[in-house]
Amino acid sequence: MKATIISIGDELVSGQTVDTNSAWLGRELGRRGITVVAHRTLGDDVEQIAEAIRSAARTTEQVLVSGGLGPTADDVTREGLAAAMGVQLVLDEESLTAIEDLFRRRGWTMAPTNRAQAMIPEGAEAIPNSRGTAPGIAATIGRARIFATPGVPHEMREMFMREIAPRLPEGAGAIVQRVVHTFGLGESTVAGMIGDLMHRDADPTVGTTVAAGIISIRVTARADDKDAARKRTDRVVEELRRRLGHLVIGEDDETLASVVGELLRAAGATLTVAESCTGGLLGQMVTEVPGSSEYFLGGVIAYSDRIKEQLLDVPPEILAEHGAVSEPVAAAMAVGCRKRIGGDYTISITGIAGPGGGSEAKPVGLVYVGLAGAGGVEVHRHVFSGTRAVIRIRSALAGLNYLRLSLLGAPLPDFDR
Amino acid sequence: MKATIISIGDELVSGQTVDTNSAWLGRELGRRGITVVAHRTLGDDVEQIAEAIRSAARTTEQVLVSGGLGPTADDVTREGLAAAMGVQLVLDEESLTAIEDLFRRRGWTMAPTNRAQAMIPEGAEAIPNSRGTAPGIAATIGRARIFATPGVPHEMREMFMREIAPRLPEGAGAIVQRVVHTFGLGESTVAGMIGDLMHRDADPTVGTTVAAGIISIRVTARADDKDAARKRTDRVVEELRRRLGHLVIGEDDETLASVVGELLRAAGATLTVAESCTGGLLGQMVTEVPGSSEYFLGGVIAYSDRIKEQLLDVPPEILAEHGAVSEPVAAAMAVGCRKRIGGDYTISITGIAGPGGGSEAKPVGLVYVGLAGAGGVEVHRHVFSGTRAVIRIRSALAGLNYLRLSLLGAPLPDFDR
Repeated sequence: MKATIISIGDELVSGQTVDTNSAWLGRELGRRGITVVAHRTLGDDVEQIAEAIRSAARTTEQVLVSGGLGPTADDVTREGLAAAMGVQLVLDEESLTAIEDLFRRRGWTMAPTNRAQAMIPEGAEAIPNSRGTAPGIAATIGRARIFATPGVPHEMREMFMREIAPRLPEGAGAIVQRVVHTFGLGESTVAGMIGDLMHRDADPTVGTTVAAGIISIRVTARADDKDAARKRTDRVVEELRRRLGHLVIGEDDETLASVVGELLRAAGATLTVAESCTGGLLGQMVTEVPGSSEYFLGGVIAYSDRIKEQLLDVPPEILAEHGAVSEPVAAAMAVGCRKRIGGDYTISITGIAGPGGGSEAKPVGLVYVGLAGAGGVEVHRHVFSGTRAVIRIRSALAGLNYLRLSLLGAPLPDFDR
Repeated sequence: MKATIISIGDELVSGQTVDTNSAWLGRELGRRGITVVAHRTLGDDVEQIAEAIRSAARTTEQVLVSGGLGPTADDVTREGLAAAMGVQLVLDEESLTAIEDLFRRRGWTMAPTNRAQAMIPEGAEAIPNSRGTAPGIAATIGRARIFATPGVPHEMREMFMREIAPRLPEGAGAIVQRVVHTFGLGESTVAGMIGDLMHRDADPTVGTTVAAGIISIRVTARADDKDAARKRTDRVVEELRRRLGHLVIGEDDETLASVVGELLRAAGATLTVAESCTGGLLGQMVTEVPGSSEYFLGGVIAYSDRIKEQLLDVPPEILAEHGAVSEPVAAAMAVGCRKRIGGDYTISITGIAGPGGGSEAKPVGLVYVGLAGAGGVEVHRHVFSGTRAVIRIRSALAGLNYLRLSLLGAPLPDFDR
């Protein structure tokens, strides 16, 4: 069972907006044993949309289309789908009532353009939208099923889960994928440790990808039944975990923040943060995890020296002598934060994220990451490469990783820095 | 002059990784007058890659390919391009030397697999990579130029800017695009205010997109020469700004955080933040902007009540009487932070980001946003819809927007909440 994912919108093709829907749909389809063959992204153009849908319907049994169902004149996915089917658009009374109800409930005035959202191709079926005004559309072309959803991510996701997923067939043959995430070493080094598992005709297939310091290893098995595929995948993941040890931070949807959260919860321990160059990013990562208030107390964004002194009790003479980006200041930030607020662990970060502010002695990318706990404080020096955004992400991830290793009682390996 | 963008990687098709390269390339090509017609995303499969490159080379004069040049066996873009060209891979000695040098400089051991990265199709040209091991490739098929780059975003971007952009032809005909961002009202309402400019055959074309509360309006003009296109675009943007007034937050790459930063800098004023449910996200947004240390002092992530009391002097009896998510607490957080740290303005945020923790009286999405300044403190109540992530982003953006309006001396319009 194969699928094509089509995303529609001038803003996607021109790059104003990054398409996150295709990746999300790819994961959800894969989970259901449906192999995504390709994604296509097109502008708001009736003929291009019609051609892409027709061509996808010839080669794959499922076609997922998102975007272009908005209320404005530039949204023409309805017209494109109707053209691909060779039919007219007709008004769907139920959808119109639903749109009118939504506006009434929210106390808004309905713009006349919203009426266009109730038009669907003749012979197609409207899919209710519980989150917004645009209904989705389900249609058939030849042997292929077409599902069109709005482009707004949370509307699309809700509609897929509630309405589209139940209409998908069971995938013919099962695909089982597990993704193992590692942190601390470069892609080539990790690949060197597992190279024999990555041969092109290996089964399961093993592939790596890298994003902001996280090396992810995908293990994918295909088989006639799910159990067989799962067993083969599990065997390879076990081997990966054996070889990579504490480099492995987690699997699938797990992140460093979610894994650290689980470890803190299990230990009954709490965390605070003292952030300079990351400016709140570390706290943001920690609190992205629902339920993080169980173990995260909060912290201080000590962007200026004034706050380092006032709220973290960093001695002014240490700042004067060593500068804000230094090992002693990272240590003082962590210790000061832990004393001032309490809690079991504090991660501190001070560095130069760039693009300006670097010097020969203290280049852009120089970051000190501190970890304070009952046993004292340790500070690690890094020189990260990459953009301001990448340097900040790597700094925050490094802090979480030191805490993870400490909670696991693991020795610190010789990380690539 | 038209272009196709092709992204390669099993992790992209399966959705493990979100493709951000295509959007970035789309923007850069558009800026150079080259119209991106479509994006395609394919797995690591030699035949599929070869077919996609051949087909793109038939319909567009420029083909930008990213991904699949890594050192591991699953990276087969080199092979796919060679197949599309109908040639063999050959070793490029210069590239091999560059890779060996890079490993030597970094003091790493070169894995044998890295040697494969110096292979390029016969007759193609290697493009130096100043950020990593994989060289890019420039090739010709028929009348089309093909450029292949690594998939790692910062390597791809650097290679495009340094090596590929100078090799692109001047676009035939000019495209000028300006994007106007608004905040505070829904897409239908904004579209209602500018609907007459959005007709399908309007020139320049006008289209809207929405992302986490920001409504962006794209104005695009095509003409034989750049000046004519610019004049037509400018006229429409002027009209948009006239109608939308203070709803307009900025243009193109401007964000609420960058615009607020400019206003603070111009006013010689400083900012602090007191964040509860956003957990550092607001500070992170503010400090994403290079040079933000000029006006941003930092703040407190008051995730727990303890920190609200200890570092922000929120009176325990207010917390007990009204609960942490309440107007009085939002006010006390802002005032306490401003008093404790100093600075001219403080934004405070306290709310229920969900998915748990809601009740009838205080539902998920209920957020109080405070703004304290020399004139006192004001608190605004919102009930945002969406996921935990969306609620947090909207909360932080709302805080920045209240500060923006205050700095502009603008009245608060009747925002959709």
